[in-house]
Amino acid sequence: MTLVFELDPDQPTEQLCYTFGGSAPVFELPQRTLLRTWTLDCFAGRVRTVEDRPSVVCDPRYLNPQTGPFFVPGASPGDTLAVHLVSLKPRENWGVSTTVPLFGALTSTGLTATLQPPLPELTWIYRLDNRQGLAHFTARESGNELALPMNPMHGTLGVAPSLGEARSSLTPGSWGGNMDTPELRAGVTAYFGVNVAGAAMSLGDGHARQGEGETCGVAIECSMNTTLMVDVIPGSYVAWPRLESDTHLMTTGSSRPLEDAFRIAHTEMVHWIADLLELTTMDAYQLVSQLAESPIANVVDTAYTAVCKIPKALIGDPVAMSGTHRRLRRLSP
Amino acid sequence: MTLVFELDPDQPTEQLCYTFGGSAPVFELPQRTLLRTWTLDCFAGRVRTVEDRPSVVCDPRYLNPQTGPFFVPGASPGDTLAVHLVSLKPRENWGVSTTVPLFGALTSTGLTATLQPPLPELTWIYRLDNRQGLAHFTARESGNELALPMNPMHGTLGVAPSLGEARSSLTPGSWGGNMDTPELRAGVTAYFGVNVAGAAMSLGDGHARQGEGETCGVAIECSMNTTLMVDVIPGSYVAWPRLESDTHLMTTGSSRPLEDAFRIAHTEMVHWIADLLELTTMDAYQLVSQLAESPIANVVDTAYTAVCKIPKALIGDPVAMSGTHRRLRRLSP
Amino acid sequence: MTLVFELDPDQPTEQLCYTFGGSAPVFELPQRTLLRTWTLDCFAGRVRTVEDRPSVVCDPRYLNPQTGPFFVPGASPGDTLAVHLVSLKPRENWGVSTTVPLFGALTSTGLTATLQPPLPELTWIYRLDNRQGLAHFTARESGNELALPMNPMHGTLGVAPSLGEARSSLTPGSWGGNMDTPELRAGVTAYFGVNVAGAAMSLGDGHARQGEGETCGVAIECSMNTTLMVDVIPGSYVAWPRLESDTHLMTTGSSRPLEDAFRIAHTEMVHWIADLLELTTMDAYQLVSQLAESPIANVVDTAYTAVCKIPKALIGDPVAMSGTHRRLRRLSP
Amino acid sequence: MTLVFELDPDQPTEQLCYTFGGSAPVFELPQRTLLRTWTLDCFAGRVRTVEDRPSVVCDPRYLNPQTGPFFVPGASPGDTLAVHLVSLKPRENWGVSTTVPLFGALTSTGLTATLQPPLPELTWIYRLDNRQGLAHFTARESGNELALPMNPMHGTLGVAPSLGEARSSLTPGSWGGNMDTPELRAGVTAYFGVNVAGAAMSLGDGHARQGEGETCGVAIECSMNTTLMVDVIPGSYVAWPRLESDTHLMTTGSSRPLEDAFRIAHTEMVHWIADLLELTTMDAYQLVSQLAESPIANVVDTAYTAVCKIPKALIGDPVAMSGTHRRLRRLSP
Repeated sequence: MTLVFELDPDQPTEQLCYTFGGSAPVFELPQRTLLRTWTLDCFAGRVRTVEDRPSVVCDPRYLNPQTGPFFVPGASPGDTLAVHLVSLKPRENWGVSTTVPLFGALTSTGLTATLQPPLPELTWIYRLDNRQGLAHFTARESGNELALPMNPMHGTLGVAPSLGEARSSLTPGSWGGNMDTPELRAGVTAYFGVNVAGAAMSLGDGHARQGEGETCGVAIECSMNTTLMVDVIPGSYVAWPRLESDTHLMTTGSSRPLEDAFRIAHTEMVHWIADLLELTTMDAYQLVSQLAESPIANVVDTAYTAVCKIPKALIGDPVAMSGTHRRLRRLSP
Repeated sequence: MTLVFELDPDQPTEQLCYTFGGSAPVFELPQRTLLRTWTLDCFAGRVRTVEDRPSVVCDPRYLNPQTGPFFVPGASPGDTLAVHLVSLKPRENWGVSTTVPLFGALTSTGLTATLQPPLPELTWIYRLDNRQGLAHFTARESGNELALPMNPMHGTLGVAPSLGEARSSLTPGSWGGNMDTPELRAGVTAYFGVNVAGAAMSLGDGHARQGEGETCGVAIECSMNTTLMVDVIPGSYVAWPRLESDTHLMTTGSSRPLEDAFRIAHTEMVHWIADLLELTTMDAYQLVSQLAESPIANVVDTAYTAVCKIPKALIGDPVAMSGTHRRLRRLSP
Repeated sequence: MTLVFELDPDQPTEQLCYTFGGSAPVFELPQRTLLRTWTLDCFAGRVRTVEDRPSVVCDPRYLNPQTGPFFVPGASPGDTLAVHLVSLKPRENWGVSTTVPLFGALTSTGLTATLQPPLPELTWIYRLDNRQGLAHFTARESGNELALPMNPMHGTLGVAPSLGEARSSLTPGSWGGNMDTPELRAGVTAYFGVNVAGAAMSLGDGHARQGEGETCGVAIECSMNTTLMVDVIPGSYVAWPRLESDTHLMTTGSSRPLEDAFRIAHTEMVHWIADLLELTTMDAYQLVSQLAESPIANVVDTAYTAVCKIPKALIGDPVAMSGTHRRLRRLSP
Repeated sequence: MTLVFELDPDQPTEQLCYTFGGSAPVFELPQRTLLRTWTLDCFAGRVRTVEDRPSVVCDPRYLNPQTGPFFVPGASPGDTLAVHLVSLKPRENWGVSTTVPLFGALTSTGLTATLQPPLPELTWIYRLDNRQGLAHFTARESGNELALPMNPMHGTLGVAPSLGEARSSLTPGSWGGNMDTPELRAGVTAYFGVNVAGAAMSLGDGHARQGEGETCGVAIECSMNTTLMVDVIPGSYVAWPRLESDTHLMTTGSSRPLEDAFRIAHTEMVHWIADLLELTTMDAYQLVSQLAESPIANVVDTAYTAVCKIPKALIGDPVAMSGTHRRLRRLSP
């Protein structure tokens, strides 16, 4: 059985949510059932030509719309929700990136506040060739063109946070949210600690491609056709989102300064590896120190995100998270 | 006329709130009307003896209870709410401080994560002599006793945040919240940008005294009898909380790392001074650089808070914020 | 006896040093002997009118010249050097402040690098009225004038660092250096751990006045006539600079991010208070948390500096650092 | 012609240096001439068994010994020095890692100071199988064994810094130094701005393998047989170290907090790409945002290091740095 949650393309705004937490579920999504749905781009489709500027055409209250939240029967506080991304396909033949005034890693911002004027606000439209898997870059102020391999991902995926909070979909944290890591691609399972009955999972912010760090603050944004399947690991709560692919175990941390995001991801990995390999904390600390790949996810959101990756093959390919990734992979088409 | 908002001392929990935003107003508070109310301490009164430890007797979901939110008729998004603190009196003859595992400035935390074990969890009870204005410290593990001058303040005061967020009362930000600055004392007016109709102001976290930085994460916590008066400055929105006393203009910034909190507070002050003295930004930058007092507020909450203070006398005692502080001061008993 | 170390006003550059460590001593300064000397301003006197811009008239290799280093007979690695500032008097009737491209707290810099252009480079000349103790501000781009109380201080004071390093006089650290705290004023004793025989103390960067944080990166810079006296506390090594006035004990920390500077200063203070009052670490942690004043020193240098202050009167006025401050105070005119 | 610079294995300490800058050259190394040399491990070979602890057997003044400095005739301030690593082979059949008290990413340190006790100090000895390219891990407190692929690299490589500074070999910065990036491996060319005549290049800190971030602060340390060749690009000065492999252009930044290291590396890359592809800054900003790989190098040294990598193939394989990498590659055996 495949469920379909369809946005009304003419009036999607009513069905969307802009916070993790604080929104009523729009759809019931049973465990281990394939869901086909789609997401709008982070500008809700309002930036379509190089003449469109986000500060003019977008309302800051309605940026980064999320599809959901989905109510997962059986998911209770204290459990872990697994979300397996089966496939991600850009929905249109174009994507968009921009600079946004006082947003991004190489500019002052509302938090890293300076007295300097903002950088120019520019829009780039990418032609997406979904058959060849290429995103075509055209420089705005120069003559260059380049073909970049697509690497579709969701910038945003998560559940309702703890402590009764409702957090903007522009922010990442322990509930997931706007982590903006290219690791969140098809074939990957994401794990989140459940804080409210039904988990209240939502997703959005599709990227045809994104550099690590999302330096200018905006990836190649596109609406996305996504197929996924969820599962619940009862009585086990991950404090911070984890990811698992066929080849890697991954932990994430989101905070400021960036070294704190790193510290979170790496302490989580040390404890995870200690559990999986039955090592003491110190032995696991040593092993992670020699094995970790440490790509930065984003240095632009209100919290920064760091990822710690461990190649499964180097640690004996252990069965992690009750084998949930393998199970969902097997159940998926 | 003086309004009174009384908590039921036997069953206060139902009336309290634990987030800024996301809670229904409990009381209507007209502009320029004296309000007498009181607040529980940050542990909701559950830590009463040196044997009580927060991690045992408190539920993390119900820490730092706020009195409110108050609905201020006439306060609309885009306005500024002024809250003038008329008087703060510790309600009991005792206060409490503790260490809390993995919380505080001189320990690793959930965000500055390390593999080290937490520091011991200890409780100190202070005898408060409200007549003499002294808080009596008794060392827990040594024989010393010291009498510290009281300096009553609210660690937490704020309004509903923007973007539909609901934020834990443990966190400070652009809406105010848990700023933990000793500057928030009687005689001071705090200004907040209004994000929702009625502003949804709440307050709590009374401190008989607190060092700048709130180093161990916990001040001399006490329930507080507080008298205050609010006013609204229509059509003027402060992006970050400001404070005004008879002697100082103050701006605040809350973020991580701490230099970003500093940058926010100081850019806000540069722009404020430029407005008040009709200076260019660069001239105001120069003047603030030579005049600023820069006390740290907290380095322990999920965002850190810095304050920038300018002595009014040195800049010709300008009329700030439409004279609201002066007006509320005059209207107060 | 009063020693005098005079710079040749026509050819001072040869006698000056630009690093802590790595320079040969220029003068022998016995313990407990009054020294009269003077220091150039941080621009070596090259910025004299509002038309002079540092980036044009200064060589970056010769910024912030230091008078010294002084060789203190008897000071050995592992000791602590005490430097008591007896008096500081601006030497001229003018001071200067500027903005410097990509330097300061409210601009991107070479380390907090962005793609934004620098702020304008402007110079302000202050008339110093040494008799009335006033520094007269004249706005550059507006008509305002203001009289600011002077508060003379040295931005830079320190010794040779450890590990054989030579550090630019533009940087603060465990050896002191460019801490830029207004607390370093007449009447104060500064303590530094000695790393090389003779300590190699030097000083410079006089400020007629500076705001806390030194926000634009430049105080009211002036050449300074300074009288001081040094002493040595044998066999006792302070890891980070400490300051002592008649009223306060102070610790400093210099690092990035700013919270690390805070953490250094406050852990140092906790251990110092524990020693002085014979408290356990946890009792001292508690006490510092309620007593600390935490002014920021600088948020502009290659390391940021934070200060922790404890009022002596509130802790029983203990004799600190072997009574060195009191002794030097008594020996001074 | 191949030059050989041999350390006397019985008395190496005299020939080594412990700072970048401030040391006299020990060997003249002409441009485009193959050099065979070797480096001690960061503990100078003093930690050899699991019983040896760095805090006991090492003198902190003599940690991380560097081979050099080498004087490169023709290298002048304002030039760029290219150092091409031809081959790196662990010299022994063992490597060592440890924890070090109050050093590492997942512990408080002297700068991120807390009141917590340090983690245990443990030593791990790795058997290095140089033929199979494997480093054999044996857990200290558990029974596990794992074979890890070797990936030999130099943690430390650089030149004398600017401003007359001498910097400890434990610190990275604009002069290179202790960057601790696994990207510094055989086949890679590193570029450094020259600050003193002859450049004063030195290298050390060989790692048989290191995780990104060097989480516990210590890689699989080993003495290293290294072959390299240098070249000079006259009249061109790179502000921060760059790396080039056959497949990637790389920039580095070293600072705190970690986001500043990221900002440095990414602004450097934006300007480099703008130059190479003749793009405007904004177009290059956009391109880097979609192309960057952003591995963390170290989060443990006194400055943290971040790397920005761009795949050459995706940007048309431009000739960078006057073709120096290609030339040195061709000249190497």
